[in-house]
Amino acid sequence: MAFDLPALDVAVANDAAAAFDAKTKPPGSLGRLEETACRIAAVRGSLPPARLRAAAIVVAADHGVAVEGVSAYPQEVTRQMVANFVGGGAAAAVLARRAGIPLIVVDAGLVEPLDDEAVLTFGASASANIAVQSAMTLEQAELLVDEGRALAARLASDGFELLALGEMGIANTTVASVLSAALLDEPPATVCGRGTGIDDHTLRRKINTVERALARHGASREPLSLLASLGGGEIAFLAGLMIGAAENRLACVIDGVVVGAAALVASALAPGLPDWLLAAHRSPEPAHELILRRLGLVPMLDLGMRLGEASGALVALAVIDAATALLAEMATFESAGVSGGG
Amino acid sequence: MAFDLPALDVAVANDAAAAFDAKTKPPGSLGRLEETACRIAAVRGSLPPARLRAAAIVVAADHGVAVEGVSAYPQEVTRQMVANFVGGGAAAAVLARRAGIPLIVVDAGLVEPLDDEAVLTFGASASANIAVQSAMTLEQAELLVDEGRALAARLASDGFELLALGEMGIANTTVASVLSAALLDEPPATVCGRGTGIDDHTLRRKINTVERALARHGASREPLSLLASLGGGEIAFLAGLMIGAAENRLACVIDGVVVGAAALVASALAPGLPDWLLAAHRSPEPAHELILRRLGLVPMLDLGMRLGEASGALVALAVIDAATALLAEMATFESAGVSGGG
Repeated sequence: MAFDLPALDVAVANDAAAAFDAKTKPPGSLGRLEETACRIAAVRGSLPPARLRAAAIVVAADHGVAVEGVSAYPQEVTRQMVANFVGGGAAAAVLARRAGIPLIVVDAGLVEPLDDEAVLTFGASASANIAVQSAMTLEQAELLVDEGRALAARLASDGFELLALGEMGIANTTVASVLSAALLDEPPATVCGRGTGIDDHTLRRKINTVERALARHGASREPLSLLASLGGGEIAFLAGLMIGAAENRLACVIDGVVVGAAALVASALAPGLPDWLLAAHRSPEPAHELILRRLGLVPMLDLGMRLGEASGALVALAVIDAATALLAEMATFESAGVSGGG
Repeated sequence: MAFDLPALDVAVANDAAAAFDAKTKPPGSLGRLEETACRIAAVRGSLPPARLRAAAIVVAADHGVAVEGVSAYPQEVTRQMVANFVGGGAAAAVLARRAGIPLIVVDAGLVEPLDDEAVLTFGASASANIAVQSAMTLEQAELLVDEGRALAARLASDGFELLALGEMGIANTTVASVLSAALLDEPPATVCGRGTGIDDHTLRRKINTVERALARHGASREPLSLLASLGGGEIAFLAGLMIGAAENRLACVIDGVVVGAAALVASALAPGLPDWLLAAHRSPEPAHELILRRLGLVPMLDLGMRLGEASGALVALAVIDAATALLAEMATFESAGVSGGG
């Protein structure tokens, strides 16, 4: 499984930069907002409108590794939070509603699916305990990636232009830590953080669990086998969403450490993918900074957020929205009759 | 001239923190968003609603020191940009429109007032060249501070709950540098930056101008005399707005280095003021980081923005808006039936 992405449109990015230079402001004075709008132009192959039509997607899955006692919360919370996304009370639901965009909730492998038609369910089962066996088969991993790609393609054809990606899954920072350790070649103690807020004892157990999973998996770094052996449903699906976004020239903003781990795998499947992504924020999870550095992405925000659920990506949408509005709507020196733009 | 501010409401801030802890998320996992909403609660003396009613204010003034050749743009640009704020093409106008809030434009001393009733004009004249004489009289400075306070009081009585403060004035980073050097006790070369994007030669001239102004002014650090001798119309008015916001328990988010310099002076006039303020962003202007550190404020954003005009404050409004929406609208563990909030 490997993907060829289209080429970024450098000429349109240069057009966007030139358009910013004609606006009534000193050159470069909007900083990262200018860079952000230019990157989006390169992704799209056209100058963005004042407001991109955006959707937030939270991909949820359960993880057999929860049985190792690596989280501060019981596994049933994954499903309860899926109900909370649909019910509108979760952080991501509040922020999506506030932004006036849909929150798409995907079940990519819950232990017990939620009986609610608002949830998009992709016939996956919860992943097995990666400390002792593969999370899923190669076929299941491949199917989830393809289903993620297909959802991105469908959203593109529905007219969406920007995806904000997040996740929910009790124990999934453990899975993200395993994948980060493998793909960044870092020791488990370096990439394991406190996730939902675990104590020292649980953190030691988490590190030990990551060590066992890596030892079981062995030396292969082939991305699909990593996904199947050490991954999780949401991570495979998110990797597919990112690849599908690039294939369809959708802008894509990624949330925290778990989505970042999915981006690492996706970038191994589709070389060049990081250039298609926008990093929303820096999480305090130690693996996240390492992941962002490897991807070559500089996050837009650094607000100490570590909730997941696309919450950081949803806040970053406001920065993206400011960037595209300024590019589309600011006056030029010429149109406003302001001196000094020459 | 000195002001006593009311006390921040620590009990309500604690109520806000407790309310966040009951929400469906790990404790503290919304990071700076939680801190921001708690600070706003302390300022208001009550829990904030989901969306604070906000206004952006850009205070514009001309500066006699422009004659020293310290800016990349001619002085006429101040007035042209005031027209651009009113006309809707300036960055601040685009961002305020996008946020659905009014952009209030204040003339606190233009060389030539704009004949437009949308501009609030406060009978000031442009400041004199601070390299050779006082910017204004003590009476003029005092009047501008009081007019700023009065505008904040009027906006409070009109139902506004949050002010985003910005400025416009060719050569005003030179004025901000002078005030920063004086109040932070830093050498001119440390606090002078490239402002609108000046070259090395102009930067040397700017530093020399700051040195001359400081030498002329002498040793006094009495804040009103600093404002009159080394200030500018927008800086005096902005200091008044900040003090007035605190007096009326309005939340107040401050933009970049020039508003920061006004906050330094305002804090000297009204001890304790920094605790009432939110810092929007960190500008690349070297004085800004030093000002923020002295004020004890940690900025919400770090996007390389250096335009002024409240542009950073307007982007930060989205972070504030997310914070208050989450506090007001997120479900609790109990209401959503999610395990583990005990």
